[in-house]
Amino acid sequence: MKSLFLLVLGNTEISTVPGISVAGATPELTKLTPPADAEYLFHEKPLIIDAIPVTPEGHPTPAIITKAARELAAFPILVVRGGTYLAPLVPHVHISDSIGRDFRRGPALPEFGEIIKRARLFGEELNKTPVEELVIGESTPGGTTTAQAVLWAMGYDARTSSASPENPQSLKEKVIGEGFKRAGIDRGELRDNPLEALRQFGDPMMATVIGVSLGFRKKVVLAGGTQMLAVSAILMALGEDLSRFMIATTRWVVKDRSATFLETAKEIGVVTYAADLDFSKSEFKGLRDYERGYVKEGVGAGGATWLAVKAGFSPGEVSEKVEELYRRLMEMKAS
Amino acid sequence: MKSLFLLVLGNTEISTVPGISVAGATPELTKLTPPADAEYLFHEKPLIIDAIPVTPEGHPTPAIITKAARELAAFPILVVRGGTYLAPLVPHVHISDSIGRDFRRGPALPEFGEIIKRARLFGEELNKTPVEELVIGESTPGGTTTAQAVLWAMGYDARTSSASPENPQSLKEKVIGEGFKRAGIDRGELRDNPLEALRQFGDPMMATVIGVSLGFRKKVVLAGGTQMLAVSAILMALGEDLSRFMIATTRWVVKDRSATFLETAKEIGVVTYAADLDFSKSEFKGLRDYERGYVKEGVGAGGATWLAVKAGFSPGEVSEKVEELYRRLMEMKAS
Repeated sequence: MKSLFLLVLGNTEISTVPGISVAGATPELTKLTPPADAEYLFHEKPLIIDAIPVTPEGHPTPAIITKAARELAAFPILVVRGGTYLAPLVPHVHISDSIGRDFRRGPALPEFGEIIKRARLFGEELNKTPVEELVIGESTPGGTTTAQAVLWAMGYDARTSSASPENPQSLKEKVIGEGFKRAGIDRGELRDNPLEALRQFGDPMMATVIGVSLGFRKKVVLAGGTQMLAVSAILMALGEDLSRFMIATTRWVVKDRSATFLETAKEIGVVTYAADLDFSKSEFKGLRDYERGYVKEGVGAGGATWLAVKAGFSPGEVSEKVEELYRRLMEMKAS
Repeated sequence: MKSLFLLVLGNTEISTVPGISVAGATPELTKLTPPADAEYLFHEKPLIIDAIPVTPEGHPTPAIITKAARELAAFPILVVRGGTYLAPLVPHVHISDSIGRDFRRGPALPEFGEIIKRARLFGEELNKTPVEELVIGESTPGGTTTAQAVLWAMGYDARTSSASPENPQSLKEKVIGEGFKRAGIDRGELRDNPLEALRQFGDPMMATVIGVSLGFRKKVVLAGGTQMLAVSAILMALGEDLSRFMIATTRWVVKDRSATFLETAKEIGVVTYAADLDFSKSEFKGLRDYERGYVKEGVGAGGATWLAVKAGFSPGEVSEKVEELYRRLMEMKAS
């Protein structure tokens, strides 16, 4: 396989704002979601905590899709710690332990320069290997809010998606408004200063993906939903030719009417792929609810499915493998 | 390039025994040598400290050879933190922060199992990429003593090399004797229990290289001197077919009469390569002294030279590039 899957982990304090993220059973538990997602890809269960990340209502992490696609297509994965509270207990590339700060109180990521520099060095090394394509997924609770803040600062009239069927847009917008007030900027004011948008409102996942993408000069698949729009927008504003980039996500993100995925992707000028996963016939409510707008994307689920499809598997086979993995989790829980 | 160079960093408390290691200007500074070596490969100078690692008499780290070979052949490098006091300030794969303990007082590496497991997972992922060959170097002050202890425990009548022209063999043997007494074992007693030898007397570099080598199933070049004999001996005892392995070192190790490199390699049954570097005509005493038995090997210098030779450069060109890099360091120091 000429493709390498990177899973970039990031935390931001924004995920602990009550109601803003469902990428964890409680706001506090969102801090553990990135390492737990990474660990679950390599083991039967996470190591740092005894259960996979779930929403407050119990919907399983999209890591289960990535794990399913990987079990089918056997693509290589490297975990990258862009900046998290805790290190995952699996081998991982260390970039930083800087988390994104609450941008209502101060700049989110004063360390963006160092993170980009290190991630770029890593990307440059990967560029010298025979790997032809990076597929870069992420696990970043609260990341759709930081993404929307960055997009707004850069003048995009974008709404990002959410892991909840009721996208907390008004809460996101309130928080972003407070951040803009604190920073003393208006929407669009950082159009020509993407790194300042990143410093003020971003998160370490974004900085890491940007750095790796600048260092690696071959094909890059940004495996995520609306968060990867912010990454693409920054890369374009930095002068990168987006023709070597693609965003791979799921159809659940694309059909989310509370967000502007396709419109904003078109505005930025980046091509997209949407994995045609379908959990409507699952025997488990936790998975069927994906069809009702829960979870939608994350941990590079769309990009992982894309790799499985390239390897000759159908989205239906990925869905079946997800079902099998979820059954295994339920049996472990029951035993 | 189908080869990937890994630089595995390890520390052991043994390096702070006065007189046992010259991989640092003082015993205390040997703690910083692994991260400083790694950083120097990517930057003009290390970051964690303002100068490259040197022996107490000022001889430069063999990282300068690795850096020279890399500047010529442009092979990719990933730094791997097997277990060190401090993390290098460059991107690196985190395996552990467990250092090897002084084996005179207790088992050296109770964490060997976890380190091997994680390193193996990393090796398995690399195995799925199109990389065809791993060249694994190391930076581990004090590592020739832990290597000799492991080899003795496994019944090899080996003497490891040293970065000093006066190999402190009697001190090494005294320290090893105390370790054997503490553990209550005789030479050769752990012949059939290589992992116990590793646990009692090894270091995290060894455990990491073993784990990676078990996970990666293609060609592996162990880039080091007598320390890689201990790694090879353990791999063989674990049932690995050594035909996919080679040890690449320098001619300074091979011609070291105080050590038994070729004899022990033959006994283990692993093929060797010796880089034909020659610093005798250097304008710098620090480099000319390599010909008098200082430094000899480390940071995968022999394996890096081998990669440069495979890419069409001569050992003479590598030596010239070393001269150029050293001149640059001297100019920076003077300015």
